[in-house]
Amino acid sequence: MTSRRDFLQKAGLSTLAVSLPFTDALSAMSLEREDKVLRVAIMGLGSYGTRVAEAMKDCKRAKLVGVISGTPSKIEAWKQKYGIPAKNCYNYENYHQIKDNPDIDAVYVITPNSLHKPHSIGVAKAGKHVICEKPMALNAEEGREMIAACKAAGVHLMVGYRMHFEAKTLEVVKKQRAGEFGKTLFFQGLSGFMIGDPTQWRLNRELAGGGSMMDIGVYSINGARYMLGEEPIWVTAQEVKTDPVKFKQGVDETITFQMGFPSGAVASCLSTYSMNNLDKFFLNGTKGFAEMQPSTGYGPIQARTNQGPIEAQHITHQTTQMEEMAAIILDGKKPLIPVDGEEGLKDLVIVDAIYEAVRTGARISLI
Amino acid sequence: MTSRRDFLQKAGLSTLAVSLPFTDALSAMSLEREDKVLRVAIMGLGSYGTRVAEAMKDCKRAKLVGVISGTPSKIEAWKQKYGIPAKNCYNYENYHQIKDNPDIDAVYVITPNSLHKPHSIGVAKAGKHVICEKPMALNAEEGREMIAACKAAGVHLMVGYRMHFEAKTLEVVKKQRAGEFGKTLFFQGLSGFMIGDPTQWRLNRELAGGGSMMDIGVYSINGARYMLGEEPIWVTAQEVKTDPVKFKQGVDETITFQMGFPSGAVASCLSTYSMNNLDKFFLNGTKGFAEMQPSTGYGPIQARTNQGPIEAQHITHQTTQMEEMAAIILDGKKPLIPVDGEEGLKDLVIVDAIYEAVRTGARISLI
Repeated sequence: MTSRRDFLQKAGLSTLAVSLPFTDALSAMSLEREDKVLRVAIMGLGSYGTRVAEAMKDCKRAKLVGVISGTPSKIEAWKQKYGIPAKNCYNYENYHQIKDNPDIDAVYVITPNSLHKPHSIGVAKAGKHVICEKPMALNAEEGREMIAACKAAGVHLMVGYRMHFEAKTLEVVKKQRAGEFGKTLFFQGLSGFMIGDPTQWRLNRELAGGGSMMDIGVYSINGARYMLGEEPIWVTAQEVKTDPVKFKQGVDETITFQMGFPSGAVASCLSTYSMNNLDKFFLNGTKGFAEMQPSTGYGPIQARTNQGPIEAQHITHQTTQMEEMAAIILDGKKPLIPVDGEEGLKDLVIVDAIYEAVRTGARISLI
Repeated sequence: MTSRRDFLQKAGLSTLAVSLPFTDALSAMSLEREDKVLRVAIMGLGSYGTRVAEAMKDCKRAKLVGVISGTPSKIEAWKQKYGIPAKNCYNYENYHQIKDNPDIDAVYVITPNSLHKPHSIGVAKAGKHVICEKPMALNAEEGREMIAACKAAGVHLMVGYRMHFEAKTLEVVKKQRAGEFGKTLFFQGLSGFMIGDPTQWRLNRELAGGGSMMDIGVYSINGARYMLGEEPIWVTAQEVKTDPVKFKQGVDETITFQMGFPSGAVASCLSTYSMNNLDKFFLNGTKGFAEMQPSTGYGPIQARTNQGPIEAQHITHQTTQMEEMAAIILDGKKPLIPVDGEEGLKDLVIVDAIYEAVRTGARISLI
């Protein structure tokens, strides 16, 4: 089965299938495809890697089958906890050998930000599909290199945008696309939390590539884009820092940023590592509004519009994400909000512009 | 009684009284003072003037006794509706004669923005206390002239900041001052509504001095200052316009603006004339938050903190405002949040900086 799937994917048939005329043969292939399971290795066994592993227990079409870690004790623990065979365990020295492992289809890269590029490219060169945690890379240039590498290797590159599959988020997005809020002219994203341990990698410029913006701020950037359904044409940004010891040079504590859109819509966002109670999206239009709070947290999302609350069952975001990513890879399914490398790159272009706006004080054009 | 009150005020005794040792004589004066009523004329009988007149029906210490209007039919209607004697009715040609009218203590100027300065100075020169609707003037320079004129005339100058007396607002402000939210590092003010009739004075640059910022945007500026309890040191701002026909040159439709404060707090605000559902304040600190929605509308304010909802009886804002302004003038009462000319000027300095930031694209320093 594996070799046949590989053959189909390399031939581009999984994408072609959706536009080909219906035949019994294709129908049989389709049925067979839905039985297939995406066999995933997680690279980076930290707290978020653990969260993804736990979430995947409930997946039907994605299965955790391998690990890549620099810590032997973690590998041992995961082998036991998740029943991972020894032959699917790698470290950062030998993970390139994964190319010879026919039992792994994709690698979920959950290492610190600065390692996303080398690790993703390493995985791509090993011929495996890449799922990379957000932000995809430190900057747009790195993002472009990753896209090129995955394209050259003929593998998928996807970014861990779990909100793109969250039911209430999708309901709000569908209403926006259907014009239910009229002309949407304002988006507000407040993304932040009070960060703890000052020694963690997220506060290390070398590893994180920045501060709150590279972590929680990306949610507001990305949210503005999918909630408004258009791409910004300019960015302005302002930084404030109250604790220069905890937040060293190049590690942003708090940034407010604004984005202008072709329609005349404007987004006003906050990214911070020094306050809690900040997990809010607000979309306002000429005919109505949507409010989400929490908007991107790991738990249940709350959403309401001018029509009332949006009801949908909470499913662990990472469970849905991995199910849907399996369908994208295995069936060529097209998600309503993209999660591919180009989508990740769009956020990185904005991150670059925000940092440039902070540095120069100028309005940065994106066109 | 009037001449004695005038004498006390001119002697500065109403202010001195609070710091003088208790005596029977002062006690008697105090009692007498509380019986006094501030006799007010309204200048400008438009919709907001009518709202104030209606609200004053429930006042015990402020009484509508006169009108100034350019429209004889309005004067007739008000005479009948509010029992105003003919001798207390003026037009814009003869209102300076109000100086010879001992039965009017103060004039509430509710004319278009560009007339606030000449009218307020005219009232001051007639020796009457000035209550001026917000924004106090078109810019800081005008505001300074008004302050100087009122000082020279020995009369009070107050700005119609009704929220400064609103019970839930004051409760939030007291909690902030008491440190209940920890270090308050973020204020968000969303102020806007979809403006109707394109021929109204608010959309006329000559009369309004601008657009949404000169009207609804001032609430977010002012709110940021009283909610955070400090004065901004820098301003940035961005303008977007979707309808250049309705919102002509110099009339802002939508402005996003940010203010930085000495503590490291930042305010992120929206002022718009093209969307409803925008009447929100959000104050966030290291230990808690306050959320107000509606935050400045004429109806009941809703406020909650991390501790739960704030309960307080709704009283028509303008009723409370006029009662409290009477106490300021008659008793020398000091409000928790100032409403004097200096307070109005602080907002105008920021309005000037916002327009300069929009024009230049630069961060405007306020220090």
